[in-house]
Amino acid sequence: MRPVDVIRRKRDGEELSPDAIRALIAGLMSGEIPTYQAAAWLMAVYFRGLGRAELAALTDAMLHSGEVMDLSSIAAVKVDKHSTGGVGDKISLCLAPAVAACGVAVPMISGRGLGHTGGTLDKLESIPGFKVDLAPARFLEVVREHGLALIGQTATVVPADRLLYGLRDVTATVESIPLIASSIMSKKLAEGIDALVLDVKFGAGAFMKTLKDARALAEVLVAIGADAGKRVTALVTAMDQPIGRAVGNASEMREAIEVLKGSGPEDTRALTVKLGGEMLVLGGAAADAAAGEERIAEALASGAGLDRLRRVVIAQGGDVRVIDDPSLLPQPRARVEVPAPVGGIVQTIDAEKIGRAAMVLGAGRRKAEDDVDATAGIEVLHKVGDHVREGSPLCVLELGDAAGVADARALALEAYTIADAVPRRAPLVAAVIRSHEPGSPPEAATA
Amino acid sequence: MRPVDVIRRKRDGEELSPDAIRALIAGLMSGEIPTYQAAAWLMAVYFRGLGRAELAALTDAMLHSGEVMDLSSIAAVKVDKHSTGGVGDKISLCLAPAVAACGVAVPMISGRGLGHTGGTLDKLESIPGFKVDLAPARFLEVVREHGLALIGQTATVVPADRLLYGLRDVTATVESIPLIASSIMSKKLAEGIDALVLDVKFGAGAFMKTLKDARALAEVLVAIGADAGKRVTALVTAMDQPIGRAVGNASEMREAIEVLKGSGPEDTRALTVKLGGEMLVLGGAAADAAAGEERIAEALASGAGLDRLRRVVIAQGGDVRVIDDPSLLPQPRARVEVPAPVGGIVQTIDAEKIGRAAMVLGAGRRKAEDDVDATAGIEVLHKVGDHVREGSPLCVLELGDAAGVADARALALEAYTIADAVPRRAPLVAAVIRSHEPGSPPEAATA
Repeated sequence: MRPVDVIRRKRDGEELSPDAIRALIAGLMSGEIPTYQAAAWLMAVYFRGLGRAELAALTDAMLHSGEVMDLSSIAAVKVDKHSTGGVGDKISLCLAPAVAACGVAVPMISGRGLGHTGGTLDKLESIPGFKVDLAPARFLEVVREHGLALIGQTATVVPADRLLYGLRDVTATVESIPLIASSIMSKKLAEGIDALVLDVKFGAGAFMKTLKDARALAEVLVAIGADAGKRVTALVTAMDQPIGRAVGNASEMREAIEVLKGSGPEDTRALTVKLGGEMLVLGGAAADAAAGEERIAEALASGAGLDRLRRVVIAQGGDVRVIDDPSLLPQPRARVEVPAPVGGIVQTIDAEKIGRAAMVLGAGRRKAEDDVDATAGIEVLHKVGDHVREGSPLCVLELGDAAGVADARALALEAYTIADAVPRRAPLVAAVIRSHEPGSPPEAATA
Repeated sequence: MRPVDVIRRKRDGEELSPDAIRALIAGLMSGEIPTYQAAAWLMAVYFRGLGRAELAALTDAMLHSGEVMDLSSIAAVKVDKHSTGGVGDKISLCLAPAVAACGVAVPMISGRGLGHTGGTLDKLESIPGFKVDLAPARFLEVVREHGLALIGQTATVVPADRLLYGLRDVTATVESIPLIASSIMSKKLAEGIDALVLDVKFGAGAFMKTLKDARALAEVLVAIGADAGKRVTALVTAMDQPIGRAVGNASEMREAIEVLKGSGPEDTRALTVKLGGEMLVLGGAAADAAAGEERIAEALASGAGLDRLRRVVIAQGGDVRVIDDPSLLPQPRARVEVPAPVGGIVQTIDAEKIGRAAMVLGAGRRKAEDDVDATAGIEVLHKVGDHVREGSPLCVLELGDAAGVADARALALEAYTIADAVPRRAPLVAAVIRSHEPGSPPEAATA
């Protein structure tokens, strides 16, 4: 089939054969199919969606566009976790060591953040000396020995996604659930894992603004995983305020260490326990989610998770002294409090605005080639439901090298709404979708 | 506005400002906006359509992407005619001289055919020596002196349309009424004419397959013309069988000469009179369509139209002897009759299949760079409603240099359906839409 006919079929809402989809991705990678045809196809997909078989074929074609990891030399069940991203989302940093401590292998491959704050890699790199670019053999060795390793994606993994994502970014085709889902899943499946837990967030600070969209994305993600023969569980979680207290890079690493020491903010801890519980179920280390959650809670309380982090920091060349003395992590050059303009109860904290405030201070990237400032960020002192007095600090701007204090302060103030009513709180986990439960995933997986 | 935001707005069904559309076309022409962004935008337009103000802005931006003709030195009202194309459509060849003979200037600029048979230029070039590439000054001189000239589009006219059409052709975005309409009208408006008559065809041999689509296109074309300050009339006409008897190039030129001599097939003549009547109304040479039609019929009967053709053939360097002796036009090397497989009444003749048969014999182009064979074509001996005997010829294959007789015969046979019933005939003109009538053109002009 000629590329123009593939575009036409999709434009007219017809189903594409797996062969047609494979040929499209192959032609795009070889340069035989020009980017303008890919762009027209992406826009047609935006309007028409992709059926379940099309999604399976697209994801498969993308993941085989590059190197696929071979983790078969690791005997344990290998489970990774992926979050669609939120403000203050440092969960991977405390989750992966806790899960590894419970006997499930976590070969975690993360991206860098592009947006409000850094990604998992940026946060890890705030530990002096920590290397996220291990060679594949060394990566396997670390996972085999310590049950986890935390590295960055290499350029050889899923090049088709980089090409397509670059195009989507400039052709207004980013916001398409099947395209988002195939992008995420192709990268995760290329890791060679057995199972995956997904944290699909919704709310002001998340990519999906509504529960409905987040649930739809979660269902498509789980369906793709199931069709690729993997066990996948997606939690749809609320991102109605920043997670925990720390929004930044070094500060989020610090908060993750606190959680691994059995303390830390309640929501950070709760999300770690929930996601970890599901990972243990998929990894065969717990009979059900409740049992899994209990084991994760124990790993946090006992320090077993912290011990795993200690081992992996050493294995990946980091300064292990930061575990016992987090003050050795990079510190902001100054801290500026943002006082409450009125007294009352915190009703909402717009996570996106807090994220943008952190980015203004240097914690995030405007462009892919920017560096993040490990020391910059926001400390959220008061969360939704807290009583505050007029003039008492709501949050603290943590200053790095960047200017922009006035803009960051304005954004932080805008983020807070304060009133007298008792605010309604959404439950942390709005839905759980499992590939290995009857009736899940749904048959229709279109956008 | 960034190009990605222009794409996003259109994707979301929002209206684009004239400035945004102008910037899009300018950026595309300068190369600042890459073709993949244009392709995504075109697909978004395919799904979302364009509003009336958007269409006006797009057409204006396109027509000003290149040279705009200045016909102000010609005192008479200047009226052109455009057909969306049909099989056996030689109407321009007899129409333009007849209209000019009635005192309306016809500065006709045509394209080459890409498809079943040649375009008006190809048919004119079957006259030995006839030049369609007059310099602008000479074009004006011929129009001024003889009331008409017939030339081809130069490369400097509406380059944005060539770029966009090239993209549409390979991105499955050809079949979009607003894109078709802005393409047609930008080229016609760039001619510097005062008024335009459009023949929008529907049926098996036409670009628009249904009356509904043809009417929608006609309405959009008329609206664009009105918004550009021009008087435009569109006739929506049936293309349920080939027009006239001749399908080819030299043979269609010959049929046009017959019509100008007061004879020729009834439908070719009727369409000439209908379209000509409207051109005279727009050109101020007739009070209404009926009066206009009467004057055209006189110009055909009196030979006044033929005299104009004679003058213009001489002016454009052609061998004028073909007018009195059309056998001097290129002749096919052989003629092969296609006998009726059964007796009965001709129910339908699929014009597209007849067109393809002619193309197989060399009368049309597969690719833009192909040459057409002036001698090849199909002579349609029997039309819808004719009684035929088994074994008597339905049509004649006129052979040029190309092979393909077997394929052409098969296509010609497939085109005919013969049965005993009396076939229903659609009226020749299904609708007339005028820019200068109350209530026309419609307010909503989206796809």
